[in-house]
Amino acid sequence: MMRYKYLLDEKDLPTHWYNVLPDMKTPPPPYRHPVTLELMKPEDLVPVFPLALIEQEGSQERWIEIPEEVQDVLKMWRPSPLYRAARWEKALDTPAKIYYKWEGVSPPGSHKPNTAVAQCYYAREEGLEGLATETGAGQWGSALCFAAQLFGLKCKVFMVTISYHQKPYRRIAMETWGGNVVPSPSSETKAGRDILAVDPETSGSLGIAISEAIEYAVTHDGWKYSLGSVVNFVLLHQTIVGLEAKKQMEMAGDYPDILIGCVGGGSNFAGLFLPFLKDRLDGTKPNLRVINVESTACPSLTRGIYAYDWGDTAKTGPVTKMHTVGHSFIPAPVHAGGLRYHGMAPIICRLLEDGFVEARAYHQNAVFEAAHSFAQAEGFIVAPETAHAIRAVYDEALACRESGEEKVILFNNSGHGHFDLAAYDAYHRKELPDYELEEEKIQQALAELPKIPA
Amino acid sequence: MMRYKYLLDEKDLPTHWYNVLPDMKTPPPPYRHPVTLELMKPEDLVPVFPLALIEQEGSQERWIEIPEEVQDVLKMWRPSPLYRAARWEKALDTPAKIYYKWEGVSPPGSHKPNTAVAQCYYAREEGLEGLATETGAGQWGSALCFAAQLFGLKCKVFMVTISYHQKPYRRIAMETWGGNVVPSPSSETKAGRDILAVDPETSGSLGIAISEAIEYAVTHDGWKYSLGSVVNFVLLHQTIVGLEAKKQMEMAGDYPDILIGCVGGGSNFAGLFLPFLKDRLDGTKPNLRVINVESTACPSLTRGIYAYDWGDTAKTGPVTKMHTVGHSFIPAPVHAGGLRYHGMAPIICRLLEDGFVEARAYHQNAVFEAAHSFAQAEGFIVAPETAHAIRAVYDEALACRESGEEKVILFNNSGHGHFDLAAYDAYHRKELPDYELEEEKIQQALAELPKIPA
Repeated sequence: MMRYKYLLDEKDLPTHWYNVLPDMKTPPPPYRHPVTLELMKPEDLVPVFPLALIEQEGSQERWIEIPEEVQDVLKMWRPSPLYRAARWEKALDTPAKIYYKWEGVSPPGSHKPNTAVAQCYYAREEGLEGLATETGAGQWGSALCFAAQLFGLKCKVFMVTISYHQKPYRRIAMETWGGNVVPSPSSETKAGRDILAVDPETSGSLGIAISEAIEYAVTHDGWKYSLGSVVNFVLLHQTIVGLEAKKQMEMAGDYPDILIGCVGGGSNFAGLFLPFLKDRLDGTKPNLRVINVESTACPSLTRGIYAYDWGDTAKTGPVTKMHTVGHSFIPAPVHAGGLRYHGMAPIICRLLEDGFVEARAYHQNAVFEAAHSFAQAEGFIVAPETAHAIRAVYDEALACRESGEEKVILFNNSGHGHFDLAAYDAYHRKELPDYELEEEKIQQALAELPKIPA
Repeated sequence: MMRYKYLLDEKDLPTHWYNVLPDMKTPPPPYRHPVTLELMKPEDLVPVFPLALIEQEGSQERWIEIPEEVQDVLKMWRPSPLYRAARWEKALDTPAKIYYKWEGVSPPGSHKPNTAVAQCYYAREEGLEGLATETGAGQWGSALCFAAQLFGLKCKVFMVTISYHQKPYRRIAMETWGGNVVPSPSSETKAGRDILAVDPETSGSLGIAISEAIEYAVTHDGWKYSLGSVVNFVLLHQTIVGLEAKKQMEMAGDYPDILIGCVGGGSNFAGLFLPFLKDRLDGTKPNLRVINVESTACPSLTRGIYAYDWGDTAKTGPVTKMHTVGHSFIPAPVHAGGLRYHGMAPIICRLLEDGFVEARAYHQNAVFEAAHSFAQAEGFIVAPETAHAIRAVYDEALACRESGEEKVILFNNSGHGHFDLAAYDAYHRKELPDYELEEEKIQQALAELPKIPA
């Protein structure tokens, strides 16, 4: 009989996060100030983020201890199971061995609480009253409301308008966990009002929602801002995924040839791949392949440029060197709301530039075709974001069928799609559009990048 | 640090189901024929159910082997975790120790696939083409579509109209797993057309949907009917829940004083409690309390009578001695669609008559108040049906706070509520109605019970 799951006990929960910064050949360049564009000092971030997180953002310590209280909350659902996709392998008739880390077991249903819990812990330690944030598809907002509730904090969520309407269940879940949710752009911030004045019918974007959340945080005493992806400390907190997966792959007696994950801001996948990439960076596993999968609707890694850009639309957040399609780019309304971010985690971008990772992009029909095949074989109906990873696994597995290679593939099954079934319905009815990217929209947006002083 | 989860490895999956029939003081009386009302012979059930299941229905074997292929599919998500609700205990400030078996980890999100997988296995072994069934809230239909797909069978689901419209995501999930779903009453069967002719605006009921599914099965070659609760063999398949839980409670070093579960047809809770009740039936645990929780909208155990009744509205299925509010009773449209069944599992009814188990009923606002409190402390948002169990746990935990007793409570957290969030939304907005039971409606329905020949 095939073995399906590799489980770790609570006592095997990792006690330290892995910080890749000291192991990178080239570190990501420092942030710049949103107005002066000068290099930023850590203290410039104090109004925005809790102090402990600012420290983690630039830390050169390779292993950073996970506070006991954070471990204790993570144990509510972690360690998460590692699955062997034995039935899907059979359905695809592939000699490849496919494994996945299943993050859908968390109460909010994705990997996002891994960092939400840590961020809320540090916020409460600092004596804050609440955290404001943005959310696309709603996974991040759900996670932060869930975690804030557990630490006695308030949570304000600016939810991208199109998702707010497409995914009412996500909004209700956030409210069940005590959050206050408004569609973004909203009339509650200047950033939101400015956008609405120009385009009252806008579907919104993560960039706009970030601007609103930052503005809300810095204009309310006792509040700070919380970000669910992109920055170094979020990737750090997510490495618990890969650290567990390494132990579980050892239990399975395999080591991955290929790692695959979807990337919006990049945190779920970096969380999985960084602890493995350590083995490539130190020369132990020189052939390890790492494939970042994005949406063709917002192809920062595959069509954007590597340049300094604002992280948000209203240009109030730090300016970051990253692959970007431009902070003013508003992507097509694909169902994978979490992949509609114009930029990408600076760590992933640097690794792409240095040739340690690869990237590819898919249209949503191709993505749901693979997710549908996965659901029929493995049972789990995954989020539209995760479905992008699944398409890449599908293609690699079929390539193995052609070549006869028994490659070991590990991907991050980052969340369930229970709140995203309208997308599957559209796919079944053949009503799911594949949006062609408007080249001039990207060129326009790229023309608005900041001019960095020499 | 508190321990939250007790996990079993795949190799610890139970290999046999527990059959309570040989251990019952009084066995449930035999079924009667829907037309003649005479005692039924097993062969009378052949057009309806696969042969192996008919055999299990009356088996006197205490332990029945779980076929290896069934075990193999169950391992896709089983053994399921046993949780200690440590944070909820703290929030309720109770000395009680609260444990729950978490069945929401299955791909369809509830305990239902435990029997769906077994039923599909026997159907495929018999060479059937497909199975037809009814579903209320959609949990059962989801489970059968999921399982049918894995065994290469077709699946036809008659979904109670009110749920079909309240819970479109459930319908989409069933379609994703390859099912064919129609709202019931439908125009595809005579039973459905007859009801629609009288009341085209009916919200439907499980009783009607059962009639349609049976009619569909017996009028299509190669098809049989599949039932998700009530009958003995379904309870048998669900005992895997309690058998795992017994091992896990041993790991936790506790034995329950009180077992709690919601009951519609009764299978999720019987699955949990029967392996423990064995210890009461044999005198080892004489004080074990077993609390069945139902909806005030359909209170078969607490307001119905113990009598022979048809299992379905069109009177085409077997006549069963059970607690019933009458096969023609149409319950108020509560969100807990799975609790809108007029009857109850004959095994549970017999145990209630003999004083081995108790029953209580709740209105839905009380139920969602407890489920909301549970979600805030434990994270998991449970199904409206399960929320009924949670209300009883809540009351017992508060009673312990009053009395200072450190009782050990174990309940079946039978499924997640990700497809039921409209109910939580209505609760938050204070728009959730508590339906007063219309006494004359029950009296009218009870007047239509069969007159059994002496």
